[in-house]
Amino acid sequence: MTRHARLDEDARDEDLAPLLSEGWRMAEDRDAIVRSFRFADFSAAWGFMTRVALEAEKLDHHPEWSNVWNRVDIVLSTHDAGGLTALDVALARRIDALAG
Amino acid sequence: MTRHARLDEDARDEDLAPLLSEGWRMAEDRDAIVRSFRFADFSAAWGFMTRVALEAEKLDHHPEWSNVWNRVDIVLSTHDAGGLTALDVALARRIDALAG
Repeated sequence: MTRHARLDEDARDEDLAPLLSEGWRMAEDRDAIVRSFRFADFSAAWGFMTRVALEAEKLDHHPEWSNVWNRVDIVLSTHDAGGLTALDVALARRIDALAG
Repeated sequence: MTRHARLDEDARDEDLAPLLSEGWRMAEDRDAIVRSFRFADFSAAWGFMTRVALEAEKLDHHPEWSNVWNRVDIVLSTHDAGGLTALDVALARRIDALAG
């Protein structure tokens, strides 16, 4: 499935680079991208997570994430592909739009 | 506030011990308890997390937690007290009730 192929060099230049210049960064030990978000309080963080959860379920692609009160840390990678795919790019874009 | 006092020896024997015999364990590096839960899929895990979030907000005491698809890892401790308090016991009990 092309949808699950790891990003090639062109895709990394075109699709991944913009994300990396807008707050995402590469994980240190894996082919994954990570980003932290902070909100006013737990309620706001949870509202954001809920919207992300719905998008993730629609994409059938889910984040690895953690929450401590107002903070949400997200890691995106595609387990089946062993690294970043177009699914991660798509989910990252939706996450950024929701974090607005 | 008594509510935020760290659990004394009696409370650890009476309140914490039952939790530790039912699936919770002490964190290795902190005065905290941890437990992992697995569900059928992301939807089920998210449903559980949502119910925990509502209980946490009612208690005004929140977990440190992470989720990877069907798995939810929870750490409970009371930041203000620097360790376990009655709030953590209360939240752990509610979490266990929700996990069924």
